[in-house]
Amino acid sequence: MKIRSLLSSDYDTLIPQINEWWGGRDMAGMLPKLFFNHFKNTSFIAEEDEKIIGFIIGFLSQDHLDEAYIHFVGVHPDYRKKDIGKILYKNFFAKVKMTDRKIVRCITSPVNKTSIAFHQKMGFVIEQGDKIIDGISVRTNYDGLENDRVLFRKELT
Amino acid sequence: MKIRSLLSSDYDTLIPQINEWWGGRDMAGMLPKLFFNHFKNTSFIAEEDEKIIGFIIGFLSQDHLDEAYIHFVGVHPDYRKKDIGKILYKNFFAKVKMTDRKIVRCITSPVNKTSIAFHQKMGFVIEQGDKIIDGISVRTNYDGLENDRVLFRKELT
Repeated sequence: MKIRSLLSSDYDTLIPQINEWWGGRDMAGMLPKLFFNHFKNTSFIAEEDEKIIGFIIGFLSQDHLDEAYIHFVGVHPDYRKKDIGKILYKNFFAKVKMTDRKIVRCITSPVNKTSIAFHQKMGFVIEQGDKIIDGISVRTNYDGLENDRVLFRKELT
Repeated sequence: MKIRSLLSSDYDTLIPQINEWWGGRDMAGMLPKLFFNHFKNTSFIAEEDEKIIGFIIGFLSQDHLDEAYIHFVGVHPDYRKKDIGKILYKNFFAKVKMTDRKIVRCITSPVNKTSIAFHQKMGFVIEQGDKIIDGISVRTNYDGLENDRVLFRKELT
């Protein structure tokens, strides 16, 4: 497996398959082209035999000069449970550290137990929300009406 | 009318009304919370009597150090044709110039003739696409399948 920086041309390869990676859910709308044009230098692709098998789209916060944010991460269904997510996150962390930033944030849906467990294993702590769901602190309507979210924060060391 | 920087709390005010501003089209999905948390310092709100009547969400390109990008602009239906869009753009241009950047980019849909005319009036030029629709050069599938786009570029002087 090879990790490389995101290219603008990855958009045309990824977008037509991305909904399938999520079992038919409409995810492509969360990945407008702008991320592939303007945030490539903190975003990475995992490749095997020149086929994209995973990606991480993140950026440096423009408002919070000590922070970076992970917007979107995906791994091809045939390549899960192989630590590809973990490797992509580690690449992002390394890049963020090179910019002298120490905090990485991201969010997930409270129903996504796999994602919550993954982030906890990666050293993220859950920020205090305004309610508890299944023992997890959650922010109500964080990403719009009925879009509750779990808020993660990791301090890079 | 007052122009001020975007606040994170504007998210909760804007999102519930934004689809109405577009006559019921689902636009809220294009405005994830991340823009309200990490790109406030290049985004602006137009207010009258403490009511939000317009906004511009833009950012400085992280990859192209001479460029900035306008992601989303909206004006309340009751306040259109009052140059509020123009004033919001001018605020964005001024902020971008303060960062020593000279190029502003944005995109629009080929069916949005009002937007195309507005951008041309604001000094944007249309980048060469791969086909012509109604005399306008358009990039096929630019923002995903069947999402053709007109690409604008303005050099700040």
